[in-house]
Amino acid sequence: MQKGVLKVGKKVVFFLSTDKYPSPFDVLVIYDAGADAVVPCGGLELDDVRDLVLDAMFPRGPKGIVDTTIFIGGKDVDKCEKVLDIAKRAMFPPFEIAIAFDPAGACTTSAAMVAKVAKAVKEKLDKSLSDITVTILAGSGAVGSRAALLFAKDGARVVVGASRVEAAQKVAKEVNEKIGEERVRPAFVPRSISEDKGETYEACKDSDVVVSTAAPGVIKLPLEILKKLDKCRVVADVNAVPPLGIEGLKMDSDSEELIPGVYGIGPLSIGNVKLQAELKLIEKAINSKKGVFGHEEAYDLAKELVGV
Amino acid sequence: MQKGVLKVGKKVVFFLSTDKYPSPFDVLVIYDAGADAVVPCGGLELDDVRDLVLDAMFPRGPKGIVDTTIFIGGKDVDKCEKVLDIAKRAMFPPFEIAIAFDPAGACTTSAAMVAKVAKAVKEKLDKSLSDITVTILAGSGAVGSRAALLFAKDGARVVVGASRVEAAQKVAKEVNEKIGEERVRPAFVPRSISEDKGETYEACKDSDVVVSTAAPGVIKLPLEILKKLDKCRVVADVNAVPPLGIEGLKMDSDSEELIPGVYGIGPLSIGNVKLQAELKLIEKAINSKKGVFGHEEAYDLAKELVGV
Amino acid sequence: MQKGVLKVGKKVVFFLSTDKYPSPFDVLVIYDAGADAVVPCGGLELDDVRDLVLDAMFPRGPKGIVDTTIFIGGKDVDKCEKVLDIAKRAMFPPFEIAIAFDPAGACTTSAAMVAKVAKAVKEKLDKSLSDITVTILAGSGAVGSRAALLFAKDGARVVVGASRVEAAQKVAKEVNEKIGEERVRPAFVPRSISEDKGETYEACKDSDVVVSTAAPGVIKLPLEILKKLDKCRVVADVNAVPPLGIEGLKMDSDSEELIPGVYGIGPLSIGNVKLQAELKLIEKAINSKKGVFGHEEAYDLAKELVGV
Repeated sequence: MQKGVLKVGKKVVFFLSTDKYPSPFDVLVIYDAGADAVVPCGGLELDDVRDLVLDAMFPRGPKGIVDTTIFIGGKDVDKCEKVLDIAKRAMFPPFEIAIAFDPAGACTTSAAMVAKVAKAVKEKLDKSLSDITVTILAGSGAVGSRAALLFAKDGARVVVGASRVEAAQKVAKEVNEKIGEERVRPAFVPRSISEDKGETYEACKDSDVVVSTAAPGVIKLPLEILKKLDKCRVVADVNAVPPLGIEGLKMDSDSEELIPGVYGIGPLSIGNVKLQAELKLIEKAINSKKGVFGHEEAYDLAKELVGV
Repeated sequence: MQKGVLKVGKKVVFFLSTDKYPSPFDVLVIYDAGADAVVPCGGLELDDVRDLVLDAMFPRGPKGIVDTTIFIGGKDVDKCEKVLDIAKRAMFPPFEIAIAFDPAGACTTSAAMVAKVAKAVKEKLDKSLSDITVTILAGSGAVGSRAALLFAKDGARVVVGASRVEAAQKVAKEVNEKIGEERVRPAFVPRSISEDKGETYEACKDSDVVVSTAAPGVIKLPLEILKKLDKCRVVADVNAVPPLGIEGLKMDSDSEELIPGVYGIGPLSIGNVKLQAELKLIEKAINSKKGVFGHEEAYDLAKELVGV
Repeated sequence: MQKGVLKVGKKVVFFLSTDKYPSPFDVLVIYDAGADAVVPCGGLELDDVRDLVLDAMFPRGPKGIVDTTIFIGGKDVDKCEKVLDIAKRAMFPPFEIAIAFDPAGACTTSAAMVAKVAKAVKEKLDKSLSDITVTILAGSGAVGSRAALLFAKDGARVVVGASRVEAAQKVAKEVNEKIGEERVRPAFVPRSISEDKGETYEACKDSDVVVSTAAPGVIKLPLEILKKLDKCRVVADVNAVPPLGIEGLKMDSDSEELIPGVYGIGPLSIGNVKLQAELKLIEKAINSKKGVFGHEEAYDLAKELVGV
């Protein structure tokens, strides 16, 4: 090593995953974001977390720790939240490790969707999120609840639609508490459109934007209802497996008109931003000394990416 | 990054293994073939495959996917075949990932053996494979059945000897169908030479070449029988644990005379070519956008390596 | 590759761990010591070892094998000893792989502690280890028994204190056999100080140095007893979780006076040397063609590091 040249350690990322195998998607993104080595820790149980984190904290010292990062992922988002909680509590200054958190892609997906919606609202409606109301269909899940927070933080009024209305209430309560205002309200929306007795229309009729964060294979907003929604100007869907939750929406629609005056954002358009946001998010975590990099940080990055 | 410089991603290889641990042998060869990172996915079950492959397909896009490769390995060759099948069916254009396939080394071992035999046939007998007949003892296994195809594709007549004659019939049928000619025939050969009632001699007596692809510890061709085989000029054996299947053959014999007029190719000579062929095979897979790299590709590379 | 430039392979370290996950601490140290890739082999059973080692021996040949290394780690030190034994027996020339051995950090921790004590003995007492007697409290464990050997090899008389006196006898016998002299003797010391009937004082009263290698959370040497030990001039403790085994000792004490005339070496001072010694130990293993790199090699490196 040359004199005067700063010694830089290898960027090592411990991939804590509640799945049997850390997701190859995330592994590739982590490498592409600049990691020198990804250490797979799959099949993670909550009991494993504290020891792993403590063990990773010490060998590089307070200065070298910037080159160590933890990524938490897995399909079981609730369990991953607990992993995150244990990991955070295990750390103490000056031995904190930066954590990137994106279980099942929920953080970057919600961030990308809200950023894309904000962009369409600005360009097509000449408004900002604080001017509008948005309904999130299947809004109590991992993506929907995070989207609710991001929309609300930027000033939107939000209707969280869910078939289990208590789940929607919980999301609304948590977000309202977090932002310190009553901007989010729950609404009952049946799981299947075949059970619908007008509730879907009710939940959407006052909204400028309707998004679906439902699981694959369920139509949440049939064209027939969409056509009756006089206020609705933008729709979006994160599900990339047909049929989409928003009937008629094209996979790669990038704010094109779905029906006259209604602009659609398809899952592939969102997916592109999600991927770029994840790259940036992990790059940021990899180069940070500490902090948790989740949906809020991803949203800032996604907004930069779409230019809003 | 400088303007105009092509951004090249890290070469990441997902090592899907049906064994508890991906084989260190293959891990080392993959690194030496140019991989930047090998991601171990051991203990693989068939149910895991589709999700892993789908997950690896998307993050780098149609262009970046050239830097992502899958290696399928494991001692259970049949299960690995199923893994390969599921992996291939999961892919679709333009998101195909190149797959290197060498479970238990069967593809590169069979390729190396057939190439070494072709070389000896050319140099010692001044013939090509299309001029000769070869008997494969224990020829219905993972190495033997692949060798049968490689020999037959290059024009040799092949006798597949096996103690379970239906297994030999199956191999003969499959190879003949694949090459579109009736060049391979089955023969009963007892598992242990102690049970032999002349069948081994019968299976070998018309062959210019006799090879053994038997498991370790079983003599398939005693010297006593070999001496009676008037036509036999070349023998080869892939088993590196004594006793060899071809009695009297030296481990490192490189087409030296075993008995007057009979040239022997020992397992270490084959092993050297196998290793080089595996390096080349994986190097090719790593640098390819798509395709399966198995015994046929390995054979082309092995022939280049031995110069035939 | 340019002509005349030596081709150097990637430094690949197979991390064999009896724990579910290879320790992140060691993973980071291995990368920082110069490894290009660490291959995690966690959840190791004894039955797995031989195949893994054999498999790692061959692909790079007798020359390339210098770039392959095995690290054996895990909390179950006894099991790791068995892993080491199987690994050593699997190898044969010229295919030997260098092995770094540091289960639960026991090798580098004992090495660092003994080196720090040797330094204090030299600087504060103007003596060498061959001039002194040392008592090791809880001395029959993984760290204590290794420390006993290192002290004795450098000429110290050693009292191994343990609550199971047969365990202490075993350590004494093994070390004495290894060094070919009767320099180590066992002593009964109760597990908890509340059960003490003077045995702790007895075990320590003739010693110039008293060290504790006890598990966290147990006071082995209360201040009250320490004050009565007229000969004792140096104390040390490897346990970094309060309360320390040596009552009153500061975590980061670096040969400062604990009570007048008694110099204390705290666990963080030892930990710093342990980390540096582990880095050097693994660096040496990574760049060696063969050999086992454990507590004796770590001790040589630790002495260099502290300058004794």
